[in-house]
Amino acid sequence: MVIRALGEDEIQARMPALPEWKHQGDRISRHFRFASFVEAFGWMSSVALVAEKLDHHPEWRNVYSRVEVELTTHDVEGLSERDFELAAEMDRLARG
Amino acid sequence: MVIRALGEDEIQARMPALPEWKHQGDRISRHFRFASFVEAFGWMSSVALVAEKLDHHPEWRNVYSRVEVELTTHDVEGLSERDFELAAEMDRLARG
Amino acid sequence: MVIRALGEDEIQARMPALPEWKHQGDRISRHFRFASFVEAFGWMSSVALVAEKLDHHPEWRNVYSRVEVELTTHDVEGLSERDFELAAEMDRLARG
Amino acid sequence: MVIRALGEDEIQARMPALPEWKHQGDRISRHFRFASFVEAFGWMSSVALVAEKLDHHPEWRNVYSRVEVELTTHDVEGLSERDFELAAEMDRLARG
Repeated sequence: MVIRALGEDEIQARMPALPEWKHQGDRISRHFRFASFVEAFGWMSSVALVAEKLDHHPEWRNVYSRVEVELTTHDVEGLSERDFELAAEMDRLARG
Repeated sequence: MVIRALGEDEIQARMPALPEWKHQGDRISRHFRFASFVEAFGWMSSVALVAEKLDHHPEWRNVYSRVEVELTTHDVEGLSERDFELAAEMDRLARG
Repeated sequence: MVIRALGEDEIQARMPALPEWKHQGDRISRHFRFASFVEAFGWMSSVALVAEKLDHHPEWRNVYSRVEVELTTHDVEGLSERDFELAAEMDRLARG
Repeated sequence: MVIRALGEDEIQARMPALPEWKHQGDRISRHFRFASFVEAFGWMSSVALVAEKLDHHPEWRNVYSRVEVELTTHDVEGLSERDFELAAEMDRLARG
């Protein structure tokens, strides 16, 4: 699959489906908060499986029950369809 | 904490709180079914954290989205409070 | 990728690369033993990522530091290249 | 177990055992680099089990095969024995 950078219009069209995410420059980001480390890390394990399958990995920082995620596509120096695909999966898995 | 084998009356008193679990001999068991391997393994990761913290580990078998769990307490050759504690956590984490 | 069942000759040709594995009927199996549950589950997490990426999942049973694995390819009712690929990755990841 | 802040002398006495770690103010930090995301996340899963058992959790950031770790003990506003215990386990698990 060819990956290409999304244009600003394409990005804006996708943001309403991700109301908890912020868009800034070449990345989108969200802070997730869970009931405890146990829930946070279980979620990270599910997300890791999805990320490896998509061959698209997050930049994420975990402190106890919180996970801060940033998504970008280095190969295109911008945002691609994969970032929005992974973000949607992250949201879905966080809903349980 | 001293671990002791629960008597049959004590076991019967605890089973109603675990309606999906079966009791047979020295063990309780449940079959969990998830939406996919991604959800199943995320749940296993959360459970693994709880198990390690309790120092009480399941016998479990995973095939894709299904996980079959058996709990027993080898040290007492029977069921102990820890089995019911871990079973309750497994149920709670499976509800998401 | 088309998946097909390997013939007996093809299976025999692949077994020497997996000296710890046994072949029986439509499956290959191996028992892994780790230093503790912590090491066992870390390995399972790595393997889970590989399995999800290959879209080929093990039948595995974990009890504390031991993991019993069986691999087969249901779609072909036998063994396919994927079983040998996943087995080789499991071995590699267990060597650390 | 009572947790207390280690004094500067106590910290300096422990640093030689952690040659890859840096000490700055109230924290110690190390950058881990693995062969791939698969190895990095397997290691994180093992570490997560240890952290939950110690009830002491890292601040960590993962990007593909790299994990940046910072350890501190919020309760004592400094470094405690637990930070050095967790750091040593992280090193041990990274050696495989």
